Amino acid sequence: MTSLITIPQTGKETRELIRAGQFRQPTSGAAPHFVQANVAILPKDVAFDFLLFCQRNPKPCPVVEVIEAGDVEAAITAPGSDIRTDVPLYRVYKNGEMVDEPDNLMDHWRDDLVTFLLGCSFSFEHALMANGIDLPYYGTERNVPMFITDIETEAAGQFSGPMVVSHRWIPQDKLVRAVQATSRFPGTHGAPIHIGDPSVIGISNIEKPDFGEVWEQSSDDQVAVFWACGVTPQSVAMSTKPELMITHSPGHMFVTDLKDEDLAVL
Amino acid sequence: MTSLITIPQTGKETRELIRAGQFRQPTSGAAPHFVQANVAILPKDVAFDFLLFCQRNPKPCPVVEVIEAGDVEAAITAPGSDIRTDVPLYRVYKNGEMVDEPDNLMDHWRDDLVTFLLGCSFSFEHALMANGIDLPYYGTERNVPMFITDIETEAAGQFSGPMVVSHRWIPQDKLVRAVQATSRFPGTHGAPIHIGDPSVIGISNIEKPDFGEVWEQSSDDQVAVFWACGVTPQSVAMSTKPELMITHSPGHMFVTDLKDEDLAVL
Repeated sequence: MTSLITIPQTGKETRELIRAGQFRQPTSGAAPHFVQANVAILPKDVAFDFLLFCQRNPKPCPVVEVIEAGDVEAAITAPGSDIRTDVPLYRVYKNGEMVDEPDNLMDHWRDDLVTFLLGCSFSFEHALMANGIDLPYYGTERNVPMFITDIETEAAGQFSGPMVVSHRWIPQDKLVRAVQATSRFPGTHGAPIHIGDPSVIGISNIEKPDFGEVWEQSSDDQVAVFWACGVTPQSVAMSTKPELMITHSPGHMFVTDLKDEDLAVL
Repeated sequence: MTSLITIPQTGKETRELIRAGQFRQPTSGAAPHFVQANVAILPKDVAFDFLLFCQRNPKPCPVVEVIEAGDVEAAITAPGSDIRTDVPLYRVYKNGEMVDEPDNLMDHWRDDLVTFLLGCSFSFEHALMANGIDLPYYGTERNVPMFITDIETEAAGQFSGPMVVSHRWIPQDKLVRAVQATSRFPGTHGAPIHIGDPSVIGISNIEKPDFGEVWEQSSDDQVAVFWACGVTPQSVAMSTKPELMITHSPGHMFVTDLKDEDLAVL
């Protein structure tokens, strides 16, 4: 007997189910081809520096929308949304320590909070798969392998630190296509930042990712390719131990009304 | 008898000549293929809102670099530069009125000023010309025609207003190429925002530009094409009558060390 689970087909449907308490799972697979976003919420007094950090590091930190202090609606990319209720699971950090993992922010909200919605890799992963590149973790419980590199981001105010990258094995004969397909999406990390030898960017062991799970090479014709990763801004912000910071819980993203193709520059 | 004028060949050379008082002219033609930037300098208390305005309107307001309050060096795109001395001519506005047009900012500088360097159309104009599209005003004293449209920008804080566009006549058989060539440069306005009938974007008379000079159609196979213009952020900021705002004088840009190709996403 198969249980019937409703998979929401649009960003708006997904947000409405979440808000009604009927969707508490990771959002991978929900609202196919709608843009999903990483969430970082910070007090207004550090918002300029964080926005500037994102501007200086557009590959790891592509800004989809900023919700200003006093507002809770992503009025441009998700009209009618409420950032306090429309993410399936949140994490609340005080001075760098996680203090709560709630399913809404009604008890934590303050009028001085600024919300940053940052592009995630789902959009360009669709583009890779559409070009015949297999991603074995896609649509499973597993996650892409991620590594802390020795590439320094451009600092802004108190924000600085190393770039985090995601790693994918790309067949030699799809390498050019992988660069082309992801270059179209600068708003969701864009072109790779490195192709080949991981040690060049400070990765000593490709089988020991810092986050996510290892993806084992299955054939000698696969080349290691690395893209800037949206974990970078969260890890950089967290390292400053802000008085209050709220994020989505991993995999539990904010789903917008934008389609992937809306973010393509070409 | 021809007088010999030294044309600086790099961004650094150009800035050094300007700083030494030996270059007081418009920068068009200087440092070919180096990225030139519009300059907007505002007090820190409105900097977050202005940066957010640029993030929300990347086509008219592509941010090349932001120099934080207390700093005067564009450390990322022009190491060793000094924004107070390295622009040939500035304009100083108080409460929306021009009060000075100095060749340096030593008498006007304050430690709370934040400098925004915004992409200009020179980079994509090189790309158009490289693709055989003639720009009759290029390298002359004349300027591209610019129009205020009825397209509203996305507001941020106190900043809002209509988008300004630049207009170019493109031969029918170069239309696709013009879109392709400029799409590569989202950091300098990117793809056109409109092709064809000017009235669709609120332009009633193509022979009466709001800024710059008219470009007369010379053949029936020319199509009107419109790109978002860097005059937009200046006109939007100025309309709020900020207590202090400093800009470059038209045509007298800040020249960076970036090459045009550094801004291509593809």
